[in-house]
Amino acid sequence: MKALEERILRDGLTVGTEIVKVDSFLNHQIDTDFLLQLGDEFARIFAGTAPTKILTMESSGISVAMATALSFGRLPVIFAKKTAPSTMVEETYAADVMSFTRGKVSTARVAKKFLAAADRVLIIDDFLAHGEAASGLVEIVRQAGADLVGVGIVIEKAFQGGREKLAPFDCPIAALARIGQIENGQIHFLPAD
Amino acid sequence: MKALEERILRDGLTVGTEIVKVDSFLNHQIDTDFLLQLGDEFARIFAGTAPTKILTMESSGISVAMATALSFGRLPVIFAKKTAPSTMVEETYAADVMSFTRGKVSTARVAKKFLAAADRVLIIDDFLAHGEAASGLVEIVRQAGADLVGVGIVIEKAFQGGREKLAPFDCPIAALARIGQIENGQIHFLPAD
Repeated sequence: MKALEERILRDGLTVGTEIVKVDSFLNHQIDTDFLLQLGDEFARIFAGTAPTKILTMESSGISVAMATALSFGRLPVIFAKKTAPSTMVEETYAADVMSFTRGKVSTARVAKKFLAAADRVLIIDDFLAHGEAASGLVEIVRQAGADLVGVGIVIEKAFQGGREKLAPFDCPIAALARIGQIENGQIHFLPAD
Repeated sequence: MKALEERILRDGLTVGTEIVKVDSFLNHQIDTDFLLQLGDEFARIFAGTAPTKILTMESSGISVAMATALSFGRLPVIFAKKTAPSTMVEETYAADVMSFTRGKVSTARVAKKFLAAADRVLIIDDFLAHGEAASGLVEIVRQAGADLVGVGIVIEKAFQGGREKLAPFDCPIAALARIGQIENGQIHFLPAD
């Protein structure tokens, strides 16, 4: 998605060779107008997959998942929780997820009552890096026995192996921007899906 | 907001005398169509306050903050982060926030570059209980020297003192539903703002 690549080049900040910060529009401050455009793009790419629910991971995935849900005619969004509040007392699907930027493993949970075998689930997240979060979400969809119709990612860091990690699940993956390399502060894109 | 009170009565689950779970539409699964209605209501209540940014707390505030931002003509949303990822390297405003449902204190942070003295900030959150999260957000707005135009809350648990805690800040507070008491599983509402 050309507008996204341009936005990353304009507003993204690189740290070393592995990190690009897009917190001015995606995952700290949210450019809501731009996110609606990302949602429209996911709806275009996954048109025909007939999702019934959008699944994402708290916190950074919520806004783009919501934008996508709106573009699909106001679908429900479910966000997996990485910590269990005392109010979360019911049965859950759960998957362990390693966060490399936070340096710890957390358990992503979704209450069982919100995902059923009849659901067609589109996973949406802000980043695909090592594939930990996405794999955890896929695992939750499998536990529910629901159909996984696709995985939509805003920014893929293709050099960290996330796509390869998802390959065994054999589902359509679409990243709106694919970063192949970060070198001397320069971001090099691969062709998007 | 009558539609919200009806929704809470229909889908909310009470736990004891202090907790009402609304995770089927607000803070785990998100009814995006209904949230747009909540956003419209906040935009109606705070019309004329001319906010430039919507500020909320991760994770549960993000979806309703986004809905409100859309109703205000696609304003930017900022969500305060309760844990600092390794990628958060810049100067931040910060406030300690006690979570009673999680039983711990965390530090809410907003990168300084996203809030300036010229901003007019509308705080939006899903719940007002003891007022910890809202007070932390207000503290962050004050650190930025920005104008606080109001605090919009989806559900206030009026028996937990949050509104009194915010009183010294002398800003308009609007809750779309105000729970006065939970007794024997029955929810009793106070008149909304």
